[in-house]
Amino acid sequence: MRATIDFLLFEWLAVDDLLRRPRFADHSRETLGGVLDTCERIARERVAPFNRIADVEEPRLVDGRVVLPQTSVDAAHAYVESGMLAAAQNYDDGGMQLPCVVEMAANAFYAKAGVGVGGGMMLTSANANLLKAHGTPAQRQAFARPQFAGRWFGTMCLSEPHAGSSLADIVTRAEPDGPGSETDPLGPRYRLRGNKMWISNGDHEITENIVHLVLAKIPEEDGRLLPGARGISLFIVPKQLVTAEGTVTGERNDVAVAGLNHKLGYRGVPNTLLNFGEGRHPVRGGAGAIGYRVGAPGEGLKGMFHMMNEARIAVGLGAVTIGYAGFEASLDYARNRTQGRPSGPAGKDPASPPVPIIAHADVRRMLLAQKAYVEGGLALALYSARLVDDLHTGDAAAAREAGQLLELLTPIAKSWPSEWCLEANSLAIQVHGGYGYTRDFPVEQLWRDNRLNMIHEGTHGIQGLDLLGRKVTQDGGAALAILGQRIAATVGRAGGTPLAEHGLALAAAWERLLAATRAAWSTRNPEEALANATPYLQAFGHLVVAWLWLDLALATGAVTGERPRDDFHRGKLQAARYFFEFELPKIDPWLAVVASRNPTCRDMREEWFQT
Amino acid sequence: MRATIDFLLFEWLAVDDLLRRPRFADHSRETLGGVLDTCERIARERVAPFNRIADVEEPRLVDGRVVLPQTSVDAAHAYVESGMLAAAQNYDDGGMQLPCVVEMAANAFYAKAGVGVGGGMMLTSANANLLKAHGTPAQRQAFARPQFAGRWFGTMCLSEPHAGSSLADIVTRAEPDGPGSETDPLGPRYRLRGNKMWISNGDHEITENIVHLVLAKIPEEDGRLLPGARGISLFIVPKQLVTAEGTVTGERNDVAVAGLNHKLGYRGVPNTLLNFGEGRHPVRGGAGAIGYRVGAPGEGLKGMFHMMNEARIAVGLGAVTIGYAGFEASLDYARNRTQGRPSGPAGKDPASPPVPIIAHADVRRMLLAQKAYVEGGLALALYSARLVDDLHTGDAAAAREAGQLLELLTPIAKSWPSEWCLEANSLAIQVHGGYGYTRDFPVEQLWRDNRLNMIHEGTHGIQGLDLLGRKVTQDGGAALAILGQRIAATVGRAGGTPLAEHGLALAAAWERLLAATRAAWSTRNPEEALANATPYLQAFGHLVVAWLWLDLALATGAVTGERPRDDFHRGKLQAARYFFEFELPKIDPWLAVVASRNPTCRDMREEWFQT
Repeated sequence: MRATIDFLLFEWLAVDDLLRRPRFADHSRETLGGVLDTCERIARERVAPFNRIADVEEPRLVDGRVVLPQTSVDAAHAYVESGMLAAAQNYDDGGMQLPCVVEMAANAFYAKAGVGVGGGMMLTSANANLLKAHGTPAQRQAFARPQFAGRWFGTMCLSEPHAGSSLADIVTRAEPDGPGSETDPLGPRYRLRGNKMWISNGDHEITENIVHLVLAKIPEEDGRLLPGARGISLFIVPKQLVTAEGTVTGERNDVAVAGLNHKLGYRGVPNTLLNFGEGRHPVRGGAGAIGYRVGAPGEGLKGMFHMMNEARIAVGLGAVTIGYAGFEASLDYARNRTQGRPSGPAGKDPASPPVPIIAHADVRRMLLAQKAYVEGGLALALYSARLVDDLHTGDAAAAREAGQLLELLTPIAKSWPSEWCLEANSLAIQVHGGYGYTRDFPVEQLWRDNRLNMIHEGTHGIQGLDLLGRKVTQDGGAALAILGQRIAATVGRAGGTPLAEHGLALAAAWERLLAATRAAWSTRNPEEALANATPYLQAFGHLVVAWLWLDLALATGAVTGERPRDDFHRGKLQAARYFFEFELPKIDPWLAVVASRNPTCRDMREEWFQT
Repeated sequence: MRATIDFLLFEWLAVDDLLRRPRFADHSRETLGGVLDTCERIARERVAPFNRIADVEEPRLVDGRVVLPQTSVDAAHAYVESGMLAAAQNYDDGGMQLPCVVEMAANAFYAKAGVGVGGGMMLTSANANLLKAHGTPAQRQAFARPQFAGRWFGTMCLSEPHAGSSLADIVTRAEPDGPGSETDPLGPRYRLRGNKMWISNGDHEITENIVHLVLAKIPEEDGRLLPGARGISLFIVPKQLVTAEGTVTGERNDVAVAGLNHKLGYRGVPNTLLNFGEGRHPVRGGAGAIGYRVGAPGEGLKGMFHMMNEARIAVGLGAVTIGYAGFEASLDYARNRTQGRPSGPAGKDPASPPVPIIAHADVRRMLLAQKAYVEGGLALALYSARLVDDLHTGDAAAAREAGQLLELLTPIAKSWPSEWCLEANSLAIQVHGGYGYTRDFPVEQLWRDNRLNMIHEGTHGIQGLDLLGRKVTQDGGAALAILGQRIAATVGRAGGTPLAEHGLALAAAWERLLAATRAAWSTRNPEEALANATPYLQAFGHLVVAWLWLDLALATGAVTGERPRDDFHRGKLQAARYFFEFELPKIDPWLAVVASRNPTCRDMREEWFQT
């Protein structure tokens, strides 16, 4: 993966240009290489060897405490020591001022080594980043800094047992914590009561404290909760209470682990049901979890979605790296496992020795598909991260454009790798044959781990609604127009090269996607437009990745003869070719149902579902 | 599933007509209904409740013996008591003379209830059927009868650790067992030495004996093994030696369990590495597992493939039923879980109560896709079984045609459900959201269980080579012509009905498939033709299932007004519509690479795979 990351960063995403911006003036290709080297090494030596242990020895609840294998605790500390939690932060916040795209690339090594060991920490930096953007100076000092330093970890507490995707229906209540609560130095103080479900890292003893960011509703004067999203506010609820200076006071907050979810994968990350304010740990005179409001009342979702966007790109990157681990494992297997003989024009000669299975065309197909999925997904994640850099450090026009494009691509960056790098993991099993189905090889765990990514941080269905229902239409389709311009630029550069044919295919596909988008909304009826939002999401994702593959192919330089056609770049070109010939054509069945506003699923009645 | 099975058997496959054949004269719709009722009940009461236990409490190796949970042993005995192992056998062999299609339908209830509990027994009837077809009268008496009676179970021992798909490379040796070995009443007697991998039910104590059917090579006079499949013979190797009358003698044969494979799914079925003849259990004076040859030397694969075809249809049916179980679970969940609100023209009203999630179009899409996959797969499995009935009890012309069509459809009957009912299981998880990812719901186990079916009894890659490399070309394409005639007949019947449009789509798709088949072979170079055999398999499978769905839609009678459009039949029509609008169009990207003999995967070089 390292060579591909170098290619993406330096040959494709022009990170050298980025380094000319003042914020990154201290960095060079060498310093960034050093960071990547370090992360790759720590991940390989101190995380990867323990990934199976994290799967087999699931977190246990002992006397109300979540207990993890010591190997997982040690791996988390190794991650913290690498400084990656604050990698992109300012020097005076203890950070390294790395570009976001390099931070993401460096984190990819940890996620690949063990998503359940090293990957759970991305929530911590997302949590701290949210506080940095929306918290008061005191909140940043008390709660964000210790997270960037890795002394505390963070969570996101959104879902409730009855409300996963529909946050409008949450019923966790936050009531002002008596006289003086408005003037607490850490922010307006409340008591929270309710249950939160699916909380990753909701409890553990890796760090001395845990910072929960919790969505809850402040009741009206008559005690009612406002229906819908309007009533939702955001609160910091630390596991251990802290002073205004951010020191743990020794008072346990009223947050209790009500249960652990036993999962198909990601088993190393404790996934908890948390009870807030039930009185299991009465604090400062009574029941109720003490929390500090972040931002204005009713503005909770806005702040949380700031964090969700980062989390969604991170989910996509996680899915990519799990796929990448399977690709590397099956490539290694295919090179070393001998079996069968290729059939030549004269049939097979059974007396000839068996060949490594990579010699079989169907095995090469499965490896090439994996390569196209995982490297395409990695390109998508790093491209998104590069947009974050432009958003934060580009000039005003570039920042605005990057922000709009990022909004559009976020549902793709989350959903596409979740679906197709899972498919890569399935192919990795298939390459192994029966061995892949056993726990003697890593690929079955990877497949299980990756299945979560289509669900958490917004399901495929939610991403589709976000894309077709909001992102492509907002601001008069401004973001879609930006993407169209970038695609057109790539197509233009492909003209006159051996890749021109792919460029034409891409341009035509883009026109079909635009036509389908218009047709979906032509009746201005959301029910009709959105009935096939998931096939739209799939088609959009495949088209975006085809575009990235064409752009990558151009970046190899090989087609224009600037560079010798070495094996590394030939492989990239062949994966691009695979994607255009085997994958891009898949978009048409998806677009067809969108364009016709196909009513088959909408029309299906519940009572017709008889088995 | 019961209503759908009744529909398939009696409204579609005309099982009433079948009952007019002399062999089935004692049966009526009522007696068959009784068999289905019984199996459904036993499966529901005595197998299904223990499916999770079989997953959680994996088989263990204790002092060389494989130990299963008692609940699994009891469930296996319940299955045996139902008489299903001999359901299709002659009355005087202790059978019920059921049509194969009814036997398959009845077995489907067990497979759905617990593929790892009740499903492992299908190998036993396949084993006994092979002996019935290829064994001597004494071998049938001694080894087949106890299996049909369920007193002993059977296995198939093909693969070796280094040779899974490539049976030509097996090295298990069978040497004549001294003077007199040629005249043993149980058949020519040999001593076998070698290792066999992936042996399902390779050891257990459910039954007093286990009948292994083992592929091995008889050395040439110079001790060499003939390379290739020519040298392979077939042997019966009982775990406990038996008398010529088929009574256990008390002598343990030299077959030892060398290890258990720890698997992703199907955990209830012990999957073993067996050592034959290593001397762990010396018998009759020495090491070497005693085995009796079945059929002529060098004819082993022929006999085994007789069994493999049945086993492949059974694998397909198993994949269907696992998909079906997930479909039913997620349908139930979607009807009862409330969350969110549909978006109408006026947007959403957050004050309205949440709706059952089945009200959301995307959830209905996921349910309808599952319905189309699992009911289409069930139709495919039962259609194949109905061909077996025509092969065995039809008149000569019908039998010949059925046999040819069965050969063609077997790779589809095996592969298509393995791929698409696995996808159904993934959708069942998705419908459940995060809950589907936990072990509190059955769908995650089902997804894990089903992943095996694309691998065992011949991988997807092998099925594709079988289909495009052999089945569509043999006898001058005779089988393909028969399928074409049957498809044309269905298209003809759809003419003039509201389904005519689907008929036209199907006819056009068939022409494209024929054109792709011709194009693939137009250079007469197997390497070019077969490089994209797996996409061909996928396209072929989707086309066959589209045909079956059109035929099913016609069988509802609804379109011609013969019958009121009740909810049950409306559901079938809508699933057919879904398949034609959302699924059939997927074949074109697959066929395109076949028709162009796309060389991308063939051309990819090993050294270009750099990561």
